Amino acid sequence: MRNKKILLTEKEIPSHYYNIVADMPNKPLPPLDPQTRQPIGPEKLAPLFPQELIKQEVTQERFVEIPDEVKDVYLKWRPTPMYRAYDLEKKLDTPAKIYYKYEGVSPTGSHKPNTAVAQAYYNKQEGVKRISTETGAGQWGSALAFAAKQFGIDLDVYMVNISYHHKPYRKVMMNSFGANVYPSPSNRTESGRNILAENPDAAGSLGIAISEAVEMAAKDEKTNYALGSVLNHVLMHQTVIGEEAIKQMEKAGDLPDIVVGPFGGGSNFSGISFPFLRKNITEGTNIRCIASEPTSCPKLTKGEFRYDFGDTAGYTPLLPMYTLGHNFIPAPLHAGGLRYHGAGVVVSQLLKDRLIEATAHDQIEAFEAGLLFAQTEGIIPAPETNHAIATAIREAERCKREGKSETILIHLCGHGYFDLKSYEDYHAGKLIRHEVTDEEIKASLSQLDVPVPG
Amino acid sequence: MRNKKILLTEKEIPSHYYNIVADMPNKPLPPLDPQTRQPIGPEKLAPLFPQELIKQEVTQERFVEIPDEVKDVYLKWRPTPMYRAYDLEKKLDTPAKIYYKYEGVSPTGSHKPNTAVAQAYYNKQEGVKRISTETGAGQWGSALAFAAKQFGIDLDVYMVNISYHHKPYRKVMMNSFGANVYPSPSNRTESGRNILAENPDAAGSLGIAISEAVEMAAKDEKTNYALGSVLNHVLMHQTVIGEEAIKQMEKAGDLPDIVVGPFGGGSNFSGISFPFLRKNITEGTNIRCIASEPTSCPKLTKGEFRYDFGDTAGYTPLLPMYTLGHNFIPAPLHAGGLRYHGAGVVVSQLLKDRLIEATAHDQIEAFEAGLLFAQTEGIIPAPETNHAIATAIREAERCKREGKSETILIHLCGHGYFDLKSYEDYHAGKLIRHEVTDEEIKASLSQLDVPVPG
Repeated sequence: MRNKKILLTEKEIPSHYYNIVADMPNKPLPPLDPQTRQPIGPEKLAPLFPQELIKQEVTQERFVEIPDEVKDVYLKWRPTPMYRAYDLEKKLDTPAKIYYKYEGVSPTGSHKPNTAVAQAYYNKQEGVKRISTETGAGQWGSALAFAAKQFGIDLDVYMVNISYHHKPYRKVMMNSFGANVYPSPSNRTESGRNILAENPDAAGSLGIAISEAVEMAAKDEKTNYALGSVLNHVLMHQTVIGEEAIKQMEKAGDLPDIVVGPFGGGSNFSGISFPFLRKNITEGTNIRCIASEPTSCPKLTKGEFRYDFGDTAGYTPLLPMYTLGHNFIPAPLHAGGLRYHGAGVVVSQLLKDRLIEATAHDQIEAFEAGLLFAQTEGIIPAPETNHAIATAIREAERCKREGKSETILIHLCGHGYFDLKSYEDYHAGKLIRHEVTDEEIKASLSQLDVPVPG
Repeated sequence: MRNKKILLTEKEIPSHYYNIVADMPNKPLPPLDPQTRQPIGPEKLAPLFPQELIKQEVTQERFVEIPDEVKDVYLKWRPTPMYRAYDLEKKLDTPAKIYYKYEGVSPTGSHKPNTAVAQAYYNKQEGVKRISTETGAGQWGSALAFAAKQFGIDLDVYMVNISYHHKPYRKVMMNSFGANVYPSPSNRTESGRNILAENPDAAGSLGIAISEAVEMAAKDEKTNYALGSVLNHVLMHQTVIGEEAIKQMEKAGDLPDIVVGPFGGGSNFSGISFPFLRKNITEGTNIRCIASEPTSCPKLTKGEFRYDFGDTAGYTPLLPMYTLGHNFIPAPLHAGGLRYHGAGVVVSQLLKDRLIEATAHDQIEAFEAGLLFAQTEGIIPAPETNHAIATAIREAERCKREGKSETILIHLCGHGYFDLKSYEDYHAGKLIRHEVTDEEIKASLSQLDVPVPG
């Protein structure tokens, strides 16, 4: 019988995170102080993050060693399995070979714990007692709740109000891991109170929730902040996925022509693709790394590369990135994790330098792809993940037309057990194909009072 | 670093199911015809099941080979991992060694697909186009939906009405795998219509849903029936769990003193324990196999061993089993999978012969155990599973008192991602410690107009 799974032993868990900055032909531009518009140094991050993470944020070292204590927690689910998607290939009748790396086996069902555990550990090392963070659909909040509990740290999660009420089970999961969860905007912060004063029923957004969590960390010395995507150190922690995938592809005796991951803020896509990009840069391979985003929040395919804030209230430094404007409010979308207005700095530079590609799908195409995957491979994917599957299917169909036997690796970053409401809406015909117009994007970007790089 | 997981390769997947009947000192008593009260032969099952499953239901062979086509589907998640629960041990400060075999990695998050895939395959082999079945909380229905889709069979699921409305996401999952789901009692069957005539808002029960699914299969030649527990062939299919666990304990260089599984109808507990019982019977080991049930549905610890129906309407043959009476309606309980009035014939005989043990926990103790497990090991267990964890913790605490370093193996049969509502109720203090009184059981059993075995 054919092997379906390519597994690694616990001894083969990666020893280092990979820092792609070391290998980038053009290094990322510096963050700017919003007031002075001058480059700011890492010391500005000290009220929010532990020293080790600040060091990681700016390091030029190619590899950063993973501490034993972090690996010991990783072993609760890592190394994660890679699968050959024989049944999907057969259904598509494609000559392409399709593999997927499955992060849904983690304690909270997505790739998010990879960085949550590292961040909780470094905070614990420096004596931090409490962390505040934001969460949208709840994947990041529940990952950090699990991680904080592992190291005995208290956690406050600001959860986007509409998700707090529409996704109660993610909240229950965070509570079950011992975290406090507050709907955002909340009365606990000035930024929250300002918004509630205007609209007591505000639906909230990820940008607002970030503002609240950052404010709490900035004003309390014993509280730190943690972010689930976008930042360099976060993306770097996720490279354990790609490092494992490289070993697994070697075990399978194969090498991908295409690596595809969904794109929200960047951690998902970066986690699988950066180690393969290293092969491209240092070994001369020609692996296409494709970031897959929704047509309703198309920062990579339709946004502009410029300085912008990471949050809505403007508390973060200005970051050089592909953005739709920090006030851009994407249409309601079931892939909540992809509703962020911007893209991480490193990924943005890579896209600008054409070292990676980007593509977009509307959510109906994405759910169709996800259901085809579920009915063949047996895993119901998260709505975010469906976008990457849609890209893979598009490429596999191209392979069929062109008679090419290319190898495609999908980052199956999470399962959809917490997102079945969205499948219910799909079955009931309630989803719409939302595509942002160029005019809407232009209008959003024209509001930005921020410098355009170079 | 310590290894946490004990993994098997795909080549090590079991080649055979184990049939404990071959090794039982006292064979199970025969099923009786409800009218004549005479033993009935397997031919009576022909309208409901394919020939191969009927053969398996009555076989005396020790091993039944697993077809390649079934193994090929199993490889989507099997072999499943075994873990050493170091963090739980540490938290309990116990000298006991605790392992758990984790079936939550299956496509539908529980052990149920092990038999669902086999049953769908044998039906497919005999040209069956449609299967009807019942489901309570939805674990069995979604497992069979996945399995039926793998073999291109249509599936109708009769889902207990109250769960249909309170657990919509399980329904969405079944729909996503292509199954039709009907609330039970329904207007599609005579047994359903009879109940609706008395009470149009009937909450339904597993016993009623079984009656409906059996009725549909009995009256349509092209439709077969499938059951998720209780029957011999179902229990036998689940032994892949224990067969893997034996190999994994050998790899770990250990042997359990105690094996514990939750108990609903029997498939869960049997799956992990029967192969270890074979060691007891044929190799003289002395492994305690403990079935863990809720105090609100205590058929093993407080029920009577006698003939009873498997369903409410009395469509099944009379089966010799531990039962609370087929009209017994257990209190609402979050572990829906444990709310069945009876126990499988084989397990009942084993308990009668004291080859296995049984114990009970109320649901608050069970949820406390589950949360302790989640916060240490990182997996939120299904409410059913929590009962087995509670038993393991009780035994680990005894080990501490007695200074004994025993080895405990838990059957972690499913995750709780679909059951977070129950954790929400627990956090909100809404659960009650329900214990059935001896009088209630006596009253229920006194209604039975069925023979008491010899």
